[in-house]
Amino acid sequence: MQKYTTEEITSKLNNLDGWDYTDGALETTFEFKNFKETFCVMTRIAFECELQGHHPDWTNVYNTLTIRLNTHDAGGVTEKDFVLAKTIEEIIDSE
Amino acid sequence: MQKYTTEEITSKLNNLDGWDYTDGALETTFEFKNFKETFCVMTRIAFECELQGHHPDWTNVYNTLTIRLNTHDAGGVTEKDFVLAKTIEEIIDSE
Repeated sequence: MQKYTTEEITSKLNNLDGWDYTDGALETTFEFKNFKETFCVMTRIAFECELQGHHPDWTNVYNTLTIRLNTHDAGGVTEKDFVLAKTIEEIIDSE
Repeated sequence: MQKYTTEEITSKLNNLDGWDYTDGALETTFEFKNFKETFCVMTRIAFECELQGHHPDWTNVYNTLTIRLNTHDAGGVTEKDFVLAKTIEEIIDSE
């Protein structure tokens, strides 16, 4: 899978809500009501990651979840990251 | 809850296996077989965190889990962190 150029990434970010391109990865931070709700969302995301065979670099502190997506094998951001980012957005929007 | 001094923390770390005192928190990193196993362990830990009313600052990248524990309210490491660290150790040892 080919990595996207910065121009391609910037353009494709218009289709996502609240994601940035930072330090070579798509990045976002969400806040939830409390830890339990945050971890519930993480669990839903985890199942989708397994399904897509693609996994985030993510950090949780109580009700905050920061997610970074890139494709190690390609050394950058690929379509896999945009697909997973969209899935994550849909999960969070449905909460 | 009173925060421990560095001397107290160093001494109490002897009762734990593989934790360090780094940047004001108890810290450890574990590696598992794959993402699914890592997230299973995270789920078991998440339930115990809710029970103890104490939550980690944790980061997962595929099969790696880094956990940092401190007590924000006390501005340092307290008994709560050592209790949770021991619980996490027991969960991981039982896998």
